[in-house]
Amino acid sequence: MFTVSKAASSLSLRRWWCGARGYSRRTPGRTRRVSEALGGSDVGSSITVQGWVRSIRSQKDHLFLHLSDGSCLQPLQVVASSELHDRLLTFGCAVEVTGCLKESPSSKQPVELLADRIDVVGECNALDFPFKAKERHGLEYVRQYPHLRCRTNVFSSLLRIRSAASAAVHSHFTESGFVQIHTPVISSNDCEGAGELFQPSGPTTEPDHNFFSVPAFLTVSGQLHLEVMSGAFSRVYTFGPTFRAENSQSRRHLAEFYMVEAELAFTRSLEDLTKVMEDMFRSVTEQVLTRCSDDVDLFHQRVTPGHRAVVEAMLGKSFTVISYTDAIDILNRSSHQFVFPTTWGCDLQTEHERFLVKHCGDVPVFVTDYPYDLKPFYARGQPGQPGPPGTPPHGGCGRPAGPGRGGALAGMEDTYDWYLDLRRFGSAPHGGFGMGFERYLQCILGVDNIKDVIPFPRFARSCLL
Amino acid sequence: MFTVSKAASSLSLRRWWCGARGYSRRTPGRTRRVSEALGGSDVGSSITVQGWVRSIRSQKDHLFLHLSDGSCLQPLQVVASSELHDRLLTFGCAVEVTGCLKESPSSKQPVELLADRIDVVGECNALDFPFKAKERHGLEYVRQYPHLRCRTNVFSSLLRIRSAASAAVHSHFTESGFVQIHTPVISSNDCEGAGELFQPSGPTTEPDHNFFSVPAFLTVSGQLHLEVMSGAFSRVYTFGPTFRAENSQSRRHLAEFYMVEAELAFTRSLEDLTKVMEDMFRSVTEQVLTRCSDDVDLFHQRVTPGHRAVVEAMLGKSFTVISYTDAIDILNRSSHQFVFPTTWGCDLQTEHERFLVKHCGDVPVFVTDYPYDLKPFYARGQPGQPGPPGTPPHGGCGRPAGPGRGGALAGMEDTYDWYLDLRRFGSAPHGGFGMGFERYLQCILGVDNIKDVIPFPRFARSCLL
Repeated sequence: MFTVSKAASSLSLRRWWCGARGYSRRTPGRTRRVSEALGGSDVGSSITVQGWVRSIRSQKDHLFLHLSDGSCLQPLQVVASSELHDRLLTFGCAVEVTGCLKESPSSKQPVELLADRIDVVGECNALDFPFKAKERHGLEYVRQYPHLRCRTNVFSSLLRIRSAASAAVHSHFTESGFVQIHTPVISSNDCEGAGELFQPSGPTTEPDHNFFSVPAFLTVSGQLHLEVMSGAFSRVYTFGPTFRAENSQSRRHLAEFYMVEAELAFTRSLEDLTKVMEDMFRSVTEQVLTRCSDDVDLFHQRVTPGHRAVVEAMLGKSFTVISYTDAIDILNRSSHQFVFPTTWGCDLQTEHERFLVKHCGDVPVFVTDYPYDLKPFYARGQPGQPGPPGTPPHGGCGRPAGPGRGGALAGMEDTYDWYLDLRRFGSAPHGGFGMGFERYLQCILGVDNIKDVIPFPRFARSCLL
Repeated sequence: MFTVSKAASSLSLRRWWCGARGYSRRTPGRTRRVSEALGGSDVGSSITVQGWVRSIRSQKDHLFLHLSDGSCLQPLQVVASSELHDRLLTFGCAVEVTGCLKESPSSKQPVELLADRIDVVGECNALDFPFKAKERHGLEYVRQYPHLRCRTNVFSSLLRIRSAASAAVHSHFTESGFVQIHTPVISSNDCEGAGELFQPSGPTTEPDHNFFSVPAFLTVSGQLHLEVMSGAFSRVYTFGPTFRAENSQSRRHLAEFYMVEAELAFTRSLEDLTKVMEDMFRSVTEQVLTRCSDDVDLFHQRVTPGHRAVVEAMLGKSFTVISYTDAIDILNRSSHQFVFPTTWGCDLQTEHERFLVKHCGDVPVFVTDYPYDLKPFYARGQPGQPGPPGTPPHGGCGRPAGPGRGGALAGMEDTYDWYLDLRRFGSAPHGGFGMGFERYLQCILGVDNIKDVIPFPRFARSCLL
């Protein structure tokens, strides 16, 4: 009555597709994802579930498996006769289980699957597999296995959260009437990236590999391209990879990271921008907390205990706006010993940002009226004077977001003729901001190392896979 | 009673932000976007609308403007006393108009705005502006102005459609239980891109600019990274820029383009994949046709007349699956003279794809069982034999989408140890596909040149902005 079938693990994928022992030939019953099965609407029915074994526990007559397919954090409990046990049924293996879904007698799970049949689709060599059942592996440990760490609970939760946050960014802007612009990765603009630009070269051309005939770079910001588009759509955003060839191994920097950037035309004041930023932050965070509550709880309870209160504080209060001059005052009045100087005209460092955020009650802080000399050409202002309202703000967790655009272009007419054209042909006051997506995820989850919030981190001397 | 105020157009953005003549100091009435005003719920109220003048018509006592802010194709008609006319009020200028929204006496528009006040926020030098009122500029002409072409009706429609299609891709996959993975742009995998890879180099390091210590490339496909992730989430997708350093000026190729790619674990048959592709195509297309009906109509009526019927044919029938061997048979039996050979073992060329699509009744066609020798290492199959079911299909408009994964890895153990690991640790049968996003847009809109469906086209010897 009970059968066990299994597919041989093999490097030849010819057998793979069809599966050994009739994997593909058998018509599955109603196939359900784990998240659907846990929903309970199939109680009393025979269903098939496919996934990976996250734990295995053998008792005298019964076998208990936890099965995960990545659709949610919570596994599906499978209960089987011990006759279904098999040497290949180990932690980490891929299985297909068919059986009847029942309400669970235990309060630990709403339902469980009483297995009629368990097929091991792909074995897992438990000795070589770097993760062990019942062990909690630290983030640094799992980071060594970029091709396997998605199989751990913590990193799979992270990637579901990242996916939900990304979807929330798109749906928030779409519903708010913004047009998404795919700003280019390869650009001939050198927008504030001086000295830290990647240059893409083609394979076969002259020694300089000048594929595009002009110097080209990997983008450090879609801002100038968004400015073009704000002159037609009023409200535009972009969300994609940006690059910095920064020779850093720090826990705060990546060579490739994601930015959300928006640009608005007909802005009247800084508040037009800070409101859009704050709305986005709230909307995305609330969607993530709702849609991935189990995943976020895993972080807030096991990885970064206490961080939930920080997030709730951020959502409970309004964001704060202070001027650069006030920020310098606050820093100078404090008794804290800073490593970097805090005289007027200095750029704010991470230690300063953290202090200001703490000082303001752990809410994201916008620092405005930056000294002109610290800002690039397209920011409004005068040398030696405070800059425009709306230069980089400093968020709850370092610097997730920064507004502030405008432009004075003295002496740059040649290179940026196109940019001057924008001013000549129906220009409108405009402003925008950017938010580092990884910094945002660190901010809401409390994760310390930026390498732990991106699927495949790239940084100096490291490009795994 | 009527006043005209205007902001001076200036390169100094200090005045810009605030606007001359009190632009930002005046509290606007209820500000509405053009799409909202056209919705009609503000009829009888005083509202403020901001945008760009798309046409201007002066009669004895009255002035008629068409105002667009990019929120939709249809402009808002503004009616003003001719006293509000001003030298600076020209085609292309940026304005803010306040007035009472009324039902329009004309059937051409549902509502019109009776202006009390018109502020010219940004002038437009009509002599130098490359687009002229009442002229229809061709796609090639507007392509010369990458920073301004978004101000034309056709290209702004295109970008709204692109944005809606992008949002539809994300919402379709999210609702279908896929996890979005940001697969990296910079990769140390050389996935089927042999000879056409961009290499990013850092700025300051040794002569070889080896920032990552290993050879790194701009991605040509997120496939291998998706395979990693399908082993944890079962269903994953990515949607981002991909690169080919192809020395081509053709109307079909770009150096930077967007790909939608998906990977599924526990696939049983090719139909598991073709169904996902077909569902995606239908869902995204139906959303675009619904949400951007005016914009799509502009293309189907003015730019590519007759193409609407092609799209409806595609949506009305099921997609077709034929084997490579059958495809070669069809080509050889036809009386059509092909430029490229059609002997068994040859790769299919564009002319062949087009013929097959036409032959199958203008629906997307999947060509399966490709010869092994034409496919890269990760495709299933044997040298000299037909390849796996599910090698690149050929879509309605060239080749928008291609399924087919698997893998035989003989002799590649060193470089791809990580890939072999995936096979050792709970592997499951899996498959995936990719769809070129620009090719998809060409396919549904009938646009001939790929440079006309992307905001900033990059190709050999061209990288504008």
